[in-house]
Formats: sequence, C-alpha cells, structure tokens
Amino acid sequence: MATDDFPRHSLNCDMGEGYYRWALGPDEELFPLIDFCNVACGFHAGDHNTMLKTVRSAIKHGVKIGAHPGLDDVRGFGRRKLEVTDDEVYAMALYQLGALKAIVEAEGSKVSHVKPHGMLYFIIRDDEAKMRAFMKAQTSIFGTTIPFFGLKGTPHEKVCNEAGVRFIPELFCDIDYDPTGKLLGVPQSHAPTPELIGKKLDRLFSKGETIDIDANPLPMEAAKGPFTICLHSDMPTAVANVSAAREVVDRFKTAA
Amino acid sequence: MATDDFPRHSLNCDMGEGYYRWALGPDEELFPLIDFCNVACGFHAGDHNTMLKTVRSAIKHGVKIGAHPGLDDVRGFGRRKLEVTDDEVYAMALYQLGALKAIVEAEGSKVSHVKPHGMLYFIIRDDEAKMRAFMKAQTSIFGTTIPFFGLKGTPHEKVCNEAGVRFIPELFCDIDYDPTGKLLGVPQSHAPTPELIGKKLDRLFSKGETIDIDANPLPMEAAKGPFTICLHSDMPTAVANVSAAREVVDRFKTAA
Amino acid sequence: MATDDFPRHSLNCDMGEGYYRWALGPDEELFPLIDFCNVACGFHAGDHNTMLKTVRSAIKHGVKIGAHPGLDDVRGFGRRKLEVTDDEVYAMALYQLGALKAIVEAEGSKVSHVKPHGMLYFIIRDDEAKMRAFMKAQTSIFGTTIPFFGLKGTPHEKVCNEAGVRFIPELFCDIDYDPTGKLLGVPQSHAPTPELIGKKLDRLFSKGETIDIDANPLPMEAAKGPFTICLHSDMPTAVANVSAAREVVDRFKTAA
Amino acid sequence: MATDDFPRHSLNCDMGEGYYRWALGPDEELFPLIDFCNVACGFHAGDHNTMLKTVRSAIKHGVKIGAHPGLDDVRGFGRRKLEVTDDEVYAMALYQLGALKAIVEAEGSKVSHVKPHGMLYFIIRDDEAKMRAFMKAQTSIFGTTIPFFGLKGTPHEKVCNEAGVRFIPELFCDIDYDPTGKLLGVPQSHAPTPELIGKKLDRLFSKGETIDIDANPLPMEAAKGPFTICLHSDMPTAVANVSAAREVVDRFKTAA
Repeated sequence: MATDDFPRHSLNCDMGEGYYRWALGPDEELFPLIDFCNVACGFHAGDHNTMLKTVRSAIKHGVKIGAHPGLDDVRGFGRRKLEVTDDEVYAMALYQLGALKAIVEAEGSKVSHVKPHGMLYFIIRDDEAKMRAFMKAQTSIFGTTIPFFGLKGTPHEKVCNEAGVRFIPELFCDIDYDPTGKLLGVPQSHAPTPELIGKKLDRLFSKGETIDIDANPLPMEAAKGPFTICLHSDMPTAVANVSAAREVVDRFKTAA
Repeated sequence: MATDDFPRHSLNCDMGEGYYRWALGPDEELFPLIDFCNVACGFHAGDHNTMLKTVRSAIKHGVKIGAHPGLDDVRGFGRRKLEVTDDEVYAMALYQLGALKAIVEAEGSKVSHVKPHGMLYFIIRDDEAKMRAFMKAQTSIFGTTIPFFGLKGTPHEKVCNEAGVRFIPELFCDIDYDPTGKLLGVPQSHAPTPELIGKKLDRLFSKGETIDIDANPLPMEAAKGPFTICLHSDMPTAVANVSAAREVVDRFKTAA
Repeated sequence: MATDDFPRHSLNCDMGEGYYRWALGPDEELFPLIDFCNVACGFHAGDHNTMLKTVRSAIKHGVKIGAHPGLDDVRGFGRRKLEVTDDEVYAMALYQLGALKAIVEAEGSKVSHVKPHGMLYFIIRDDEAKMRAFMKAQTSIFGTTIPFFGLKGTPHEKVCNEAGVRFIPELFCDIDYDPTGKLLGVPQSHAPTPELIGKKLDRLFSKGETIDIDANPLPMEAAKGPFTICLHSDMPTAVANVSAAREVVDRFKTAA
Repeated sequence: MATDDFPRHSLNCDMGEGYYRWALGPDEELFPLIDFCNVACGFHAGDHNTMLKTVRSAIKHGVKIGAHPGLDDVRGFGRRKLEVTDDEVYAMALYQLGALKAIVEAEGSKVSHVKPHGMLYFIIRDDEAKMRAFMKAQTSIFGTTIPFFGLKGTPHEKVCNEAGVRFIPELFCDIDYDPTGKLLGVPQSHAPTPELIGKKLDRLFSKGETIDIDANPLPMEAAKGPFTICLHSDMPTAVANVSAAREVVDRFKTAA
C-alpha cells in the first residue's frame, strides 16, 4: 500500500466478533459505513465459519479486510490481562495471520492491514520486545507490503519503522484517553453517544485535538497526517456511532 | 514434489497432538525414527504453542512437515462423528492449513504434504463433495505443489487426480482393515504389538498384501507403487511400534 | 411439586443461553412474561457467571427456575448429533444439575424442574437406556421431588413413571411437529410469527389440537391434562412470540 | 469431620487432572499411596467424564475425595494470573463444588474436604474478600461439615475460623517456600527428587521445620498440630516422590 492511496481520514471497525452460535455486532449494517474492517481470527472471537462469512460480506461491500488477531482468550474476549512470552506472541500472531490470509486469498481478495485486538494491542504497545515478536510474524507472512494500525509514539510505531512496515496511526472517539494521552480500554472508558462522537471528530479534523476522559482538550499529534478512526462494533449504539462518524469523515474527507 | 524424490517406502506419524498443558505421544523419541510428521493444527489437538515447538523439533531432526488438520472437536480428539457442511470443511481446511503454513515458513521450512486427521480423513474419504471442498482449500493455499496422503481407490485419490495434486497412498499396520479392505478407526481396531507390526510390514513389502481384522490375507493394490506407512504416536507402545516398522522399512527401502 | 400446584397451562423459556461476552435472547424482557425458565448449565451455553446472573434475575421476577442441561458442545450450541454413551449422559447430567442446584440454593431458591436442551432432549426421548442414565442422575440429586418436562408418549414419560418422578408434558408452538406428531428441531422447523403462535395456542386450548409442519390438524393427547408450553428465547421475534403466547395462556388459564 | 478422626500426618494429591483425550498424572499408581485426593472439577482440568472415572477409582481404593476447583482456565492449567471479581470467585466455587458433590454422592460417597487449585488457591490466600466469597460458596453447599485445606497464617485460615469451618494446614515438600515462608508455585520452584522429599519430611516430622528455596532452615508452625502433606501428581517423578513421602509418613504416623 503506497502512501498515496491511503485515505487521509477513514473509518475502521472490528468485525466478525461473533462466536459460533453467538453474534456480536450488527456487522451487516456497519459494512456500508466503513472503509476497513478488522476481522477477528479465532482467538478472542470469530471461529473459522464466522471468519469465512465475514470475509465474504466485506468483499461484497467493497470493504478492505484487515487481520484482527487477539490473545488466546475467548472467555475474556481478549480483554483480560494475561502473561505471555515473546514466543507466545510470535506463535499466536503467525497462527491467526496465516489463517486469515488463507481465507481471504481463497475468496479472491488480499489482506489489507493488521490491527491487533484488545489486550494484545495494549501488550505490544507497552513492550517493545513483544511488538518485535509480533512484527517478526507479520513480516514473515506479509513482508512489508501491508500496514499496521496502531498508536503513535509507542512501540507500535517504533518497531514498524525498524521493520520497514508502514505505520498508520489510529485515533479513537468512542473510548477515552487519559489526561496524558494514553488510550484506555473499553471497560475503563465512558459509554459514548453518537452526538459526542460527532463533536469529537469534528474537533479532531478541524483543530487536530480531541478531549480526554475528563473532558479537557488533548492535542493529537497523529491528526496531522493520514490516520484512521477506529470504532467499536459491539457497543449498543454502534450503528448510530459509526453513522455519526461517517457523516463527519465524509465532510472532511481528502486524499492523502 | 516430483515423483522421483518420494521414497518408495516411508514412515509418517501424527505429531504435536498435545494440548496446552497436556502432552500426548513421545514425540521426541519418535522424530529420529520417521520420514514425515503430520502436525496437528489446533482443531482436534495442537495449540499454536505446541505447533511452534513441534515444527522446531521436526526441523532439528530433518523430518518433513505435513499439515494434519482435523474436525473442530478437541473434546472428541477429532474422532467423533460430526455433521459438517461442505463450506465448513472448506473453512476448517483453510484456517488450519493457513495457520500451519505461516508457522512452518516463518521457521524457515516448507510444508511438505497434507494429511487430514481422524474423522475428517474419513469424511472426505467417503464424500466426494467434501473432498472437493477440502481440496479447493489445499490448492488455494499450496497450488499443486505438495501431495495429499490418503486412501487409494476412494474420493481421496479421485479428487486429487481431478485437481492435479499428487496423491500418495497410505497404508496402515497398527490399525485394522475390514475384510473388504476398508480402513477402520482406532476405536474399532485391535491394539497392535510391535511384533505384529513388523510381520505385517514384512508381508506387505515382500508380497504386497497385509491381513484384515480377522487375520485373513488382504491384497494391497497400493503396495505396488510408492506409498507411505502411517503409524500412531499416541498408542502406549508407539516407540516400539515405530522402531519395529523402521527396521523393516530400512531393510526394504528403495528409491522410487 | 404436588399435582395441584402445577398450573393447568404455563409458559417456559430457555434462559441464560449467552456465553461469556456473548448474549443470546432478550432475557430481561422475557422474564416478566413467563412462568418457568430453563437455565443453561454451561455445556451448550451459559457459563457460571451467566448462570448466577440469570438465577438472580429469575428470583427477582418470581419465575421458577429449572435446570437446562445440554450436550457438551458449545460450538454446536448442543444441537448437533453427537454419539454419547449412557455413562456420559449420566456424568453430564450429574455435573450440570449439581452445578445449577448449588447456585440456585446459594441464592436462596430451589430448582423447580428439569428440562434438557436440544439434542440431549432428543437423544433421551429416543433412547430409553440413555433416559434412564439421565434419570438416575436427576433422582440421585433431587430424589422424586421435582418434575421433568418432556414429550408425552416417549421414553421421557415412560422412565419418569418408572422412577416415580412427575412428568409434565411440553407442547410447542414455535417449532414444528411432523405429520406423525414427532417434534422437529429448530433447524428443521419453519420460522414462526407471533400471529401464528397465537392461533396455534388458541386452537390447542380450545380444541386440544395443533397443526403439523404441513398445516394439517394434529390432535394433542397431552393437551387434556396439565402441560407447559415451551417457547424459544433465541428467535428474532422472541419477545413478540412470548407476548402472543402469554395473552392466550392468560385467557385460558385455569388451575390444575 | 471431627478433630479426632483427622490423621496427624497424611498425604493428599491432586487427581483427575486429565482433560478429555489427555491424561496427566499416573493416578492409578498413586491412589494406593495416598490418604486424600483432590479431584479437578472441570475448570482448570478434569472434564465430567474424567471426574466420574476418578471418583470411582478413589472409592475403589478407599481414598477420601476432596473438591479441587480452579480458575476457569484450561489453557493455562489454572496457573496463570487472571483478574477475577469476588462474584466470579463465588460463582466458580458454587459451580465446581456443586458439580463434584453431585458426582461423588451419586456414586455413594461423600466429599471429604475442599482444596482449591493453583492460582485460585493463591488468590484466596492473598485476598480476604475473595476467600470470603469462596467460603460463602463452600458453606452454602456443605455447611461447616467438611474442612478446607490451606495455608496457615493466611486468609485461608482466618476466614475458615470466621465461618466455623475446620481449617487443615497443608505443608509442601515438592515445591518451595521463599525465605519468609511464603509458598511458591510450581513454575517458581526447583524440581524435587524423591530423596530430597524424604529428607525434608523426616526433618519436618522430627524437628518441625523444613528448608526454604535457598536450603536454609525454615520453622513450620503448622507442623505442631494435625496437617496434611500435599504432593503433585503431574511431576515426572510423581510416583517416586509420593512413595518416598509415604514411607516417611508411615514411619511417623500417629493419630491426631
């Protein structure tokens, strides 16, 4: 993916986070509203049948398909703290990325990006060695052809740069940042409203800043270049949230 | 894999069939005795950490590494009858083959063959449409570059031929055939002794026949060309069984 | 439970069929509409946390709490055919009934009845030995103090009678019977509408008959005495279905 | 269990820690050597079929049967740190204790004691509120009729005393204590030899002290009264370890 073809602003959602009999988000309603989906790869959600179905839907809707690997923790939805070694990160990334790649390519498409889930995303944000273990898996499978979606100014970005992999910063508007700019998890954040999401994005696009969990202004360095907005598909107001975000993004949308 | 480089006679074993804390067979003792291993891919056994460890051992021992996908049934060890659709076979094959490929290649090796496990092996032996669904997954990932180990005269062979994938017949000496030559599962077979395994293989290599579950002679068409002998690593006498087989194979070994 | 205190007509629903992060039916909306709930016990759905939460909700709403044990098959939601031995039925019934009893009694209530789920319900309807294995578990834990909800004229009823356990026939109006009166599973049935459910129940209460899958009249022997109507909480129209049924039941409601 | 009938010295082992197809320890060889077994209840190991089989073996060997509940973490064998709430501890204890009780009583025996597994044991050793949540479950099911095996001078003992439940201190000789007397987990301990186990127990019984991880003497307050020695069944030298311990215990054995 060359720099030029990445949209200046875009929306991504985690998709396919059901598990066998159980669905999670309103995927079919969200697909028309987003640019990128992150498909759960079976470790925190998203068994093989759900993955195949989700990949087919994404292709039908023309949504680019990313890999969304998580910790091996269905019962905690990949959001619980678990101790993992570097080798375990490497193995879990290989397994999940390899599995999704096989499904996507068999269906005639390509994996467009990598975006880890929940606690795995946070673990490799905070631990360079684990981010390197992850990136070793990603580059073994995809070389440097696809970008990584992550958090600016963290090992996500640093290790991508070392590996020659394009780093796309993610910004969030449905979960919170603490006053230092550190991203909080879903359980630690306030439940958002579509209105608030719209206001935060408008501010982000127009002023390059958002607000933190205490509603104080927070400048966002990442907003200066191309970035992607991540929204959660499993919130009760997900469709309204993403619709609100879509409206603002479309208003400000520009090529990179 | 060209015809010429496949050994006239060879041994393969299922490996890496532990599950997290639990080991199964004496893999480290068996690796020095075999030519091919079939690595469990996480659906009937063999989580990602076990897979990585098993692939590293195989490489260290110079044993060729095949994929050993199974039904999504850890609790039944992939040996219980389960109803699956063609699409489910396709999805489960893509997922597991893709995952193992990623691990093997990241470790610097190549997947050498595909050999399904237990009930999945039997389902696609008995149902051409499901064998086609499986083969569609295999060829999507590997093209026609690697062979499929299966049962001669069944949809295994027929669909390989249709797809242009090399078919390597498997013969068994530690589980039984019924009087019509149909292979029985582990639960339906007699427990073997190393002595019996040695005698059956000697007879197979010298006369092209084995004995059925009633101890009557059974001609083996597949013994006329290159084939591979499959032995189970999870029997109590596994090391003695494979050692007995190795001795006979080495005695008769010839290039294809 | 004495004969007298069982309502002549009543509604029961399977509840607590979520699984960790994933919810299934609209339990909180259904509780006010039903008499009995059947709480999933962890084998086909309903982990321990979901069970505790569901039991607390049932108590709050004054809904009687039954045990809803299923096959050990979360991935197939307990609806796939699986081969099980009598001993496995016995062990799975003991485990699940014992677990639910502990939770219900710790919360200050009592288990009111037993109603197996999905394929387990069908297996013990069709196999007397397995129904005996199940009943051996039920009576070991509960003696003959609580009834079994099942299908009239099948081993369900016969083995209850042998064991001295009260048998309450269940009738269904949101899944279908075949022309011989045999109950079909959810996947084999037509999706119902609330209107159709209302009509079928009206006919059942007024004439003692329903209609089969081909819309032909089907007399229901069980409608002559006390019985309970089972409705599914995981259908898309579940709240409307149960509301429609409640209206008819209340109209016809009489003491036993 | 009255004070008088508890053996002054006794051996307990965790048993039934297989998982479906996978066995773990040499249970059948260990049963003749021990006084109490702690039966895994399905959350860290030990599915319902394994539990039934283990309970039957224990009864056959005249070994008293305790409940061995663990964290809901098969993949980490209940030994990984996981964040759990008090309510989750309460629910997981109810579920597992209720399930085992049902199986043991259906087989004509009684649960003799409760002994949590791995990380759950440590969590409620270190957190009084969680130990209270656990004890609320235990007493709801068993009242104050059966003892809890735990660590002296910790919330284990304190909360047992509050609840009127007999507390039996456990001492360990195959894993280590740190210099302050704090028990370490299996992964943090040295692998023991049978000889060392014999020496440590001899010292414990004769002098009331053991040695810490640095081989320095460590007085053991708990050795003054009745206690039980816990040995692990999943160590490679388990049979030799327990045999060595048995020999010493028999030599020193006295009534309480």
